[in-house]
Amino acid sequence: MEYFGRRVRGIVPYTAGEQPRDRRYVKLNTNENPYPPSPATLQVLRAFDGAALRYYPAPDADDLCAAIAEAEGVGRENVLCGNGSDEVLFLTFAAFFDESRGVCFPDITYSFYEVYAGFFGVPVAMVPLRADFTMDLAAMAKAECAGYYIANPNAPTGVGIPAERIAAFAASVPECIVIADEAYMDFYGQSCARLTSAHPNLLVVKTFSKSYSLAGIRCGYAIGNAALIGALRSMKDCMNSYPVDALCQAVCAAAVRDRAYHDETVARVVAERGRLRDALLALGFTVPESKANFLFAGRAAKSGKEIYTRLKEEGVLVRFWDKPVLRDFCRITVGTPEQNNKLLASLQHILFL
Amino acid sequence: MEYFGRRVRGIVPYTAGEQPRDRRYVKLNTNENPYPPSPATLQVLRAFDGAALRYYPAPDADDLCAAIAEAEGVGRENVLCGNGSDEVLFLTFAAFFDESRGVCFPDITYSFYEVYAGFFGVPVAMVPLRADFTMDLAAMAKAECAGYYIANPNAPTGVGIPAERIAAFAASVPECIVIADEAYMDFYGQSCARLTSAHPNLLVVKTFSKSYSLAGIRCGYAIGNAALIGALRSMKDCMNSYPVDALCQAVCAAAVRDRAYHDETVARVVAERGRLRDALLALGFTVPESKANFLFAGRAAKSGKEIYTRLKEEGVLVRFWDKPVLRDFCRITVGTPEQNNKLLASLQHILFL
Repeated sequence: MEYFGRRVRGIVPYTAGEQPRDRRYVKLNTNENPYPPSPATLQVLRAFDGAALRYYPAPDADDLCAAIAEAEGVGRENVLCGNGSDEVLFLTFAAFFDESRGVCFPDITYSFYEVYAGFFGVPVAMVPLRADFTMDLAAMAKAECAGYYIANPNAPTGVGIPAERIAAFAASVPECIVIADEAYMDFYGQSCARLTSAHPNLLVVKTFSKSYSLAGIRCGYAIGNAALIGALRSMKDCMNSYPVDALCQAVCAAAVRDRAYHDETVARVVAERGRLRDALLALGFTVPESKANFLFAGRAAKSGKEIYTRLKEEGVLVRFWDKPVLRDFCRITVGTPEQNNKLLASLQHILFL
Repeated sequence: MEYFGRRVRGIVPYTAGEQPRDRRYVKLNTNENPYPPSPATLQVLRAFDGAALRYYPAPDADDLCAAIAEAEGVGRENVLCGNGSDEVLFLTFAAFFDESRGVCFPDITYSFYEVYAGFFGVPVAMVPLRADFTMDLAAMAKAECAGYYIANPNAPTGVGIPAERIAAFAASVPECIVIADEAYMDFYGQSCARLTSAHPNLLVVKTFSKSYSLAGIRCGYAIGNAALIGALRSMKDCMNSYPVDALCQAVCAAAVRDRAYHDETVARVVAERGRLRDALLALGFTVPESKANFLFAGRAAKSGKEIYTRLKEEGVLVRFWDKPVLRDFCRITVGTPEQNNKLLASLQHILFL
């Protein structure tokens, strides 16, 4: 017997980066932050009233939303939290798109967008990146669709777009929703969060997984005007009343409020990003200028697959996709100086010995 | 401008029980456990390596699934974990139903099923409960549908069905999927989890929110044969690669492994359930025999709404729905002996003074 509906029969799910347990790797494959989360988050864990876990959490994560609103310079009613930015992105697909409201995004970008579109039966208009990996916003503006996903900085290229250009794009397509996926934005500093008040069709999505070093706790959020946030909340309440658990709310609120620690670790990653890119260029790689916490490096003396495979043998994990264009490259997370030195020594060895 | 798709325009979301902050209530409205979670969970919190939160969690919650498999007497490949059983139920709708594969459930049951059906555009065949609040499985077996949701014990009535009858029902509808929603099952002890190996169309869904006193941490799971679990995992990977965070995995695994504590707190709730029901019957309420951690009490000298409202004034929160049949009743969570005594004293006052 076959018990499955059309979604099970018709979709190829997203594949996350490998999390091998067989040995210790220098793990530069899933864009985790090389520094631990704020010490304030650890204090929250130690002090948390475990007995209170018998109660359901605040369904709309009020205190966490207040902390985010203050940090992002928006109102409390402009924030919605979810179980990772992946869940928040899923909610945006549910709210803004359907079989007759299509979506547009670049051909090379976060590959989960295409999975969500398949899940909801949403028609997709893909616009190729330019040869230099920048987004062709002019071509995207002409696409027939109800809205856009713009990963900024883009994945896996790392290429960024200034906030004012995103805002101008949103203004140029006033009948469409524009979702700026800013998962990596804190390594760039060009967030559109504050611009959402002036642009009723602009929604920003961010995460605690990267700049806050909290990939393990699963929290992301959306910022936009109250009508957009209200629609996302409706979708949340069609899926799961309490997507953000009580510990997660407390830990993330502490992380947001420790702005100094956040900014310091971000600055360290950004400094290493520049040094690592220069070294990769010197090794003969093509590396688009990255505004994220990773570098997209390829077109060197060996193929992306060979570099990925040989690095893994040497105990360094990076991300590789066996797909057109992407297969010439690897995506390399910026690590600590020591991790990056190990990577560079291995690459030297692989390419030239 | 209108940026929303058909789902936002067409669905009434689920409304969770109120979580007021204005004063301290004797909170008997959301079926939380009156006892704290296992002391082992608190130790996990205190000992957790906060620095490791910078890594993504195990995407399929391997260790937690292993702990659940052992406790439930099934294989590791027969378990899938999600962000609360609400998310797991959402995944079952995504996997097993669509516009041409309809669903059947009783007219009085967990009201989230109807919301999920609306979200996915799934046709619904509702079969009325019998006058004594038991499920009419014979009528349900004749419904035109691709599958069933059977909350066992049912909500908000508390009425239970022995495991063998659920298994017989599944065997009688071999072309349909049967989802046994066992959120409250540990207060009854008639789980179908071990019967799933003999019934390829039977899937069991359970939660950590009730018998494990962990509503705050958000974890639920499905048990079924590997093909059903594989389909649910595909749907998970279309929504969110990492729905269960690292802390949640560790805390819930510790809770599952402390079977003695679990069984002891369950026994305490079950004992109070009997005492409380007898007292409510003596006050003139109609109270179906409950196998859950709540009682469905009504048809007394005052209406459900009046009892709910007056109890709230007296500092006791219970759940009330202003809907046909339900409006004659309140759903009352079984609390500690002290909480139940306060409830009974308030009811005495409301009904007879």
